[in-house]
Amino acid sequence: MPDYKVPVNDYLFLFNDVLDMQSKYKSVQGGDEASNDMVEAIFTEAAKFCENELAPIYQSGDDGCTWDNGVVTTPAGFKEAYQKFIEAGWTSLTGSTDMGGQGLPSSIGIAINEMMTTANWAWAMYPGLSEGAVATLETSGTEQQKKDYLVKLISGVWSGTMCLTEPHCGTDLGLMKTKAVPNDDGSYKVNGTKIFISAGEHDLTDNIVHIVLAKLPDAPKGTKGLSLFIIPKFLVAEDGSAGERNGVRCGSIEHKMGIHGNGTAVLNFDDAKAFLIGEPNQGLAAMFTYMNVARIGTASQGAAAAERSYQGAAKYARERLAMRSISGVKNPEGPADAIIEHPDVRRMLLTQRVIAEGGRAMVTYASQFADLYRGGNSQEERDAAEIRLGFCTPILKGFITELGVEAANHGVQVFGGHGYIKEWGMEQILRDSRIATLYEGTTGIQALDLVGRKVLMDKFKQLNVFTGEMLSFAGQFLPWKKSPQAKQMRKQAWTVAKLAIKWRYLAYRMAMRAKKNPDNVGASSVDFLMYSGYAYMGFMWAKMSFAAHKQLAAGGGDKNFLESKLHSAEFFFERILPRADAHAKTLSANLESLMAMPTSYFE
Amino acid sequence: MPDYKVPVNDYLFLFNDVLDMQSKYKSVQGGDEASNDMVEAIFTEAAKFCENELAPIYQSGDDGCTWDNGVVTTPAGFKEAYQKFIEAGWTSLTGSTDMGGQGLPSSIGIAINEMMTTANWAWAMYPGLSEGAVATLETSGTEQQKKDYLVKLISGVWSGTMCLTEPHCGTDLGLMKTKAVPNDDGSYKVNGTKIFISAGEHDLTDNIVHIVLAKLPDAPKGTKGLSLFIIPKFLVAEDGSAGERNGVRCGSIEHKMGIHGNGTAVLNFDDAKAFLIGEPNQGLAAMFTYMNVARIGTASQGAAAAERSYQGAAKYARERLAMRSISGVKNPEGPADAIIEHPDVRRMLLTQRVIAEGGRAMVTYASQFADLYRGGNSQEERDAAEIRLGFCTPILKGFITELGVEAANHGVQVFGGHGYIKEWGMEQILRDSRIATLYEGTTGIQALDLVGRKVLMDKFKQLNVFTGEMLSFAGQFLPWKKSPQAKQMRKQAWTVAKLAIKWRYLAYRMAMRAKKNPDNVGASSVDFLMYSGYAYMGFMWAKMSFAAHKQLAAGGGDKNFLESKLHSAEFFFERILPRADAHAKTLSANLESLMAMPTSYFE
Repeated sequence: MPDYKVPVNDYLFLFNDVLDMQSKYKSVQGGDEASNDMVEAIFTEAAKFCENELAPIYQSGDDGCTWDNGVVTTPAGFKEAYQKFIEAGWTSLTGSTDMGGQGLPSSIGIAINEMMTTANWAWAMYPGLSEGAVATLETSGTEQQKKDYLVKLISGVWSGTMCLTEPHCGTDLGLMKTKAVPNDDGSYKVNGTKIFISAGEHDLTDNIVHIVLAKLPDAPKGTKGLSLFIIPKFLVAEDGSAGERNGVRCGSIEHKMGIHGNGTAVLNFDDAKAFLIGEPNQGLAAMFTYMNVARIGTASQGAAAAERSYQGAAKYARERLAMRSISGVKNPEGPADAIIEHPDVRRMLLTQRVIAEGGRAMVTYASQFADLYRGGNSQEERDAAEIRLGFCTPILKGFITELGVEAANHGVQVFGGHGYIKEWGMEQILRDSRIATLYEGTTGIQALDLVGRKVLMDKFKQLNVFTGEMLSFAGQFLPWKKSPQAKQMRKQAWTVAKLAIKWRYLAYRMAMRAKKNPDNVGASSVDFLMYSGYAYMGFMWAKMSFAAHKQLAAGGGDKNFLESKLHSAEFFFERILPRADAHAKTLSANLESLMAMPTSYFE
Repeated sequence: MPDYKVPVNDYLFLFNDVLDMQSKYKSVQGGDEASNDMVEAIFTEAAKFCENELAPIYQSGDDGCTWDNGVVTTPAGFKEAYQKFIEAGWTSLTGSTDMGGQGLPSSIGIAINEMMTTANWAWAMYPGLSEGAVATLETSGTEQQKKDYLVKLISGVWSGTMCLTEPHCGTDLGLMKTKAVPNDDGSYKVNGTKIFISAGEHDLTDNIVHIVLAKLPDAPKGTKGLSLFIIPKFLVAEDGSAGERNGVRCGSIEHKMGIHGNGTAVLNFDDAKAFLIGEPNQGLAAMFTYMNVARIGTASQGAAAAERSYQGAAKYARERLAMRSISGVKNPEGPADAIIEHPDVRRMLLTQRVIAEGGRAMVTYASQFADLYRGGNSQEERDAAEIRLGFCTPILKGFITELGVEAANHGVQVFGGHGYIKEWGMEQILRDSRIATLYEGTTGIQALDLVGRKVLMDKFKQLNVFTGEMLSFAGQFLPWKKSPQAKQMRKQAWTVAKLAIKWRYLAYRMAMRAKKNPDNVGASSVDFLMYSGYAYMGFMWAKMSFAAHKQLAAGGGDKNFLESKLHSAEFFFERILPRADAHAKTLSANLESLMAMPTSYFE
């Protein structure tokens, strides 16, 4: 397993030069703390932590957690790293100041999460899950609940989980069976079994705060009858510490394809004492905040897989010698040329790279709405940001995780047969990355969310806002606008404009077809999601090109870095973007080609 | 892990109705034995063996081989299954009659290999590797070598391996270091280390016959200085049995991503006694036969992964309930509809299915050339068949294995989170399938073989033959030809014709660009390979459509099966084939977008 070097310069390029987050922080609570220098200092420190503490225990963490009679032990080094992590105050970075947090904008936390995931995916899930619990309690918890749990979660001395899935229901939460009945003291008693609970049991913290969906007696059927509860592993004692053991036990941990360092627990709730969050039967609404947080985090994981895999493959490709370059010997002293000289190896490396950097840009772009959603100065601003974020979320989660798996596959491929051998570490990245298109809503579910709720039910409003931004970006480079970058940007700007228009057209056309037969929605949803992803990523690559051209023209910045951006952008537009057309064509195919075959023929 | 049911009807449809192998067997040695009835009986028996003996130990085989001081033990049940396998005479099916084989055409063996791989990938590799050794000895062994080894290999009491790779060289065999020096008795003494030797050490047979590439003293540099040797684990005793232990030891077995049931050995040759095959320094030429065999076998593995994964996913999708169908309730008695009713789940299932069936058709089509290559009645016929097979091989191996991984990914995805859990078996298929794009030459190497040797150096001759066949197939349905299927086939036939023409155009264009800069070859090779694969697969789907239409018109055959073929073909043309255009567009992109970035920027 190669080392991981955090591309701090790329994060700073995005924050400062491409997206100018500074100017946006002005209207975000806590944003005035986040000066350029402060952000750079934080990223630099976070990078050190990731490189020195997390990355070195990534591969050994693949040995996995062990379960013994309900007790889960994390891999060697995980607990020590976690201790250093909370001591350095990393968990509290973006937490509310009145709960002991530092109150910095979410975008900074999102970037650091990505670094941590790249360094050590399974480890990073522990604090990642806590964040979901924090977000839920911040939004929907009572003051007492915040005092009891939020402070401990923000400081990281306790961790959190989200308990949704049951053996017979993942996506379709309405089928849930876990039951909650009221106790006399205002608390509840919960019985049932939850599965696939990431970070559900471990030895990193003194207590684990489970956020659990369950049904009250006489709850309405389906998802309208779900309520949300806090179920701590240990009940809070008088002095606020972890007290009496509660009725939740880890029945086993799953044997998975990857992310072995994270204990994926089966949790049995046996008369567990529970505390209602928000209103009865409003549990799903209270979960939405968590879902937005979790889905951005998962989208980052796609970029993380691509980055880690790229770094490993690029190093190997520079060192491994095989065959001579077809266009002439490149390494005359050696017995063969480095494989990076072979065009097809470059193709794989650049594909990984544009996925990593393009995905990171997509997430960072959306993180400005996460900042406003959480820290906007008015309810209006917050609501508007929530809607903008909500449009981006399924694209980010669905598209980037799919491409993350692709990138990890290329990483294995660059290594040839060695890629398949555990000791090189590349296959672990692939196995780990594979979970990301499954959890927090599969790609298919993201696609339905995008098409159904975020485009059709929204009557194209957010699609028009997003594509409007693409068009006005492209419009800067029209000849009469006299932009100094007009000539350099003309081709990419024109492509971005075409993507925006076609994206709208595809959406309208899909709406027409859905009127004829609603199955057209599901039949084209994943292709529409993928088209959306390529359009969004294309927009980001054009923005990065523009920022790089500007800086190069001004003579500032790191020339190699900026030129790499231009080369990568060119690669994206020439050699990756053609895929978008294939998705456009497929999503316009006739419905019969998918639905006409009788179910009984699927044997 | 779901059961595996061999789709015997699909094999028979291909052999009898689509490709009419019977008529082709007339000009193949041993072909007269292979009547329709005989082929059906063989497939039916093979299916029983696969379903009853191999499939049940597929998942448990994932526990893997164990290594103890050079001794490798295969997973529980593997040895017993192998014993039954050789007792039933399966290894000798296609072997030469004068060496104890049954002399049946290779195409039958290729089909059965695919069934066995689908049932149990890691297990099927043991006899699979023996076949490579058999092919090499049949072509290049002396009579004495055949007597000593071939009879034992064909009967299966001994097994074989192919030892090429060394730690520092896989593809670039010219860098090889293993040395052979002549002994006084005409034998040789070999020293060196080989890695990644599939089936390199195990407990299934009394002896293992290693076919090893090594360098003689004063051999020419590079691949022209390689010689091929037989190095048996035990030297052949006077009575023909396994005698004295030879100097080859298994230093370790690799820890891999998958195919755990096959021991992938590091073999140390320490003054091992070796016997030259063929002429000195002509080792690579003697390996070509093996490579053709191995690459077809690996191509089949792509179809196998798709089939096994499809069967598991289709069963799950019929049973798992979640959400209601958007076009109306399909399962009113249940709490939700089966997920197979959701269009996106169907999309994944049909994608798997067209890969499995389309890939199988591609391999079967090529196997007619394998028959002629091995059993053609004249040298001229055999040479012509070798060239036709040689054109198909890199497409089959490169394209079908890539799509096999895709299909296995869909299989995991249909299961949602459960797909990631070992107990369900879907992730194992994915892990196993991942090796196929790496071994026996990566996809990139297949692409260079296709573009460089099989298209450009061949001056488009074989491409013209193949595409000519596509055009004459399509031409049958021109209006004035009065084919009864003209109307039904018009659209697909027109698409096949367009594919053929564009395939030629892309090849000519690539040749022009290669003249300007040879790096254009490597820059477009994988996209060209993928385009070729979709074109070839499209041709197969059109042929299958035609056969199904004819049978339905005649009122014969299994209606459900034939209609499924038509639905699947429609799905392929409408929803998979658009990808070909994306590859065409990408392979025409400017070279600078790939090669302009300096190597030093790949950090």
